[in-house]
Amino acid sequence: MSNEEKLSKYIHIINGEQWLVEDDRDNLKVSYRVKEVIFSAESPFQHVMILETYDFGRMLVLDGVVQSTEKDGYIYNEMITHVPLHIHPDPKKVLIIGGGDCGAAKEVTKYKSVEEIYFCEIDELVVKASKEHLTGVADHLNDERIRYIFADGIQYMKEHRNAFDVIIVDSSDPVGPATELFTFDFYQNVFNALKEDGLMVCQSESPIFYKDTMQNTFESLNKLFPVVKPYTAVVPTYPGGLWSFTIGSKRYQDLADTGFEPATKYFNRDILNACFALPQFMKKD
Amino acid sequence: MSNEEKLSKYIHIINGEQWLVEDDRDNLKVSYRVKEVIFSAESPFQHVMILETYDFGRMLVLDGVVQSTEKDGYIYNEMITHVPLHIHPDPKKVLIIGGGDCGAAKEVTKYKSVEEIYFCEIDELVVKASKEHLTGVADHLNDERIRYIFADGIQYMKEHRNAFDVIIVDSSDPVGPATELFTFDFYQNVFNALKEDGLMVCQSESPIFYKDTMQNTFESLNKLFPVVKPYTAVVPTYPGGLWSFTIGSKRYQDLADTGFEPATKYFNRDILNACFALPQFMKKD
Repeated sequence: MSNEEKLSKYIHIINGEQWLVEDDRDNLKVSYRVKEVIFSAESPFQHVMILETYDFGRMLVLDGVVQSTEKDGYIYNEMITHVPLHIHPDPKKVLIIGGGDCGAAKEVTKYKSVEEIYFCEIDELVVKASKEHLTGVADHLNDERIRYIFADGIQYMKEHRNAFDVIIVDSSDPVGPATELFTFDFYQNVFNALKEDGLMVCQSESPIFYKDTMQNTFESLNKLFPVVKPYTAVVPTYPGGLWSFTIGSKRYQDLADTGFEPATKYFNRDILNACFALPQFMKKD
Repeated sequence: MSNEEKLSKYIHIINGEQWLVEDDRDNLKVSYRVKEVIFSAESPFQHVMILETYDFGRMLVLDGVVQSTEKDGYIYNEMITHVPLHIHPDPKKVLIIGGGDCGAAKEVTKYKSVEEIYFCEIDELVVKASKEHLTGVADHLNDERIRYIFADGIQYMKEHRNAFDVIIVDSSDPVGPATELFTFDFYQNVFNALKEDGLMVCQSESPIFYKDTMQNTFESLNKLFPVVKPYTAVVPTYPGGLWSFTIGSKRYQDLADTGFEPATKYFNRDILNACFALPQFMKKD
């Protein structure tokens, strides 16, 4: 399909209004009223849109599915970065895999102690569009410590050993290009790419709607890392709201007391202490 | 509008499938695929439906808006009851205002120490339909301690003084019949209806989408009660996922150590300790 055909597939005109109708689930549809299509193009990997919406500000949409918004994207991005960066006591070399909205990279730049930020995203167009148009999420991302690597994270992990303090796997859902980012083999390579006291975090999907993915992630990491810590946050634009993340750590498990408090909108010390509390249904099986 | 007209307003036929299209917000629509309309009728107060859905099991829908589902209703109902019932050390007389899905009442019956449960819901039809058809939420609600009062909670509060240990205000959104349940005058009457060491809780809406309501609730309770404690939970079928509750207490503020752990699916001791942690944006203003 051409960009024009994709655009008319995702953006519906209803009573003269433009609506993005998310169509990735069989039995639940969420529709967002759109003010303006800011950017729309087909990359070699997926269809990329930036929309100006009424309720969520600017929004990054890949293959018709919402990835990040100005209204609530900071919650996800703060929680996937500040939690692991508060467990590792001295992260100097941080790798982000995925995270094309640039929000995770922006959060990592808040740590002065971090010396190098490797940002490995397969789709250069997503980064370009986000930096230019998704400014509420990606703003001011001109930090000299960032090294952009537009490459396949799977392959990149195979080529590195004992290299990173923290690896943040900020993938989209396990369909299409991101599927392999949820496999044991990939996590094994992430393990090998970490230094001997390194740790990783990944988003591990909705505990309500994609419980299997969350459990498989936990089990995979549990075979590799001595410390595995799931935690949760609320992501309003993801189905079910409740979202899980999982940390795999080679050495550190407690919260480091660095005294550093990044400037944030969701994350704080209370949330950091509370986020590891799991609902009963996440504990039982 | 007749029941039939309402039904065809709320349930859309799309490509031969039945969909409930929630239509209460201007710029965001959530649609749920429906297997079967189990119950549909017009009460003197609102249109009442019970639907069998694909992703959320049975669902209670009032005036076209989802109130409670088998899939996730327990989160809301556990969090609006077990948190206050773990702060009051010895609740004997508990009042529920609203809560027509019967889920909050069901949770309260888990406490053997509670002697009387007053359940004041304006719309008898909602309770009747829920008890008969919404069994995953309202099941086994034949407890002899429950006294049903089908009356206006506003009026009921005006008529009681120094009567209850715990009052749970389980209202729908502040539109239509529930509007007055969010006013200072109402909270004042709740304060008066509580015993001298009593406490109340209310749902105080989404901190993301209805921040004003949440803040007004906090300010109203703050004028009345020496102890005011907001807390949050995730409610997947409510807009934004993140939901706020606010406790107003005349005396108790710490968690009581009763040793009692109700059988639950979401709530547990970790969640109880964690739920008072507020995101940065809820603290700042």
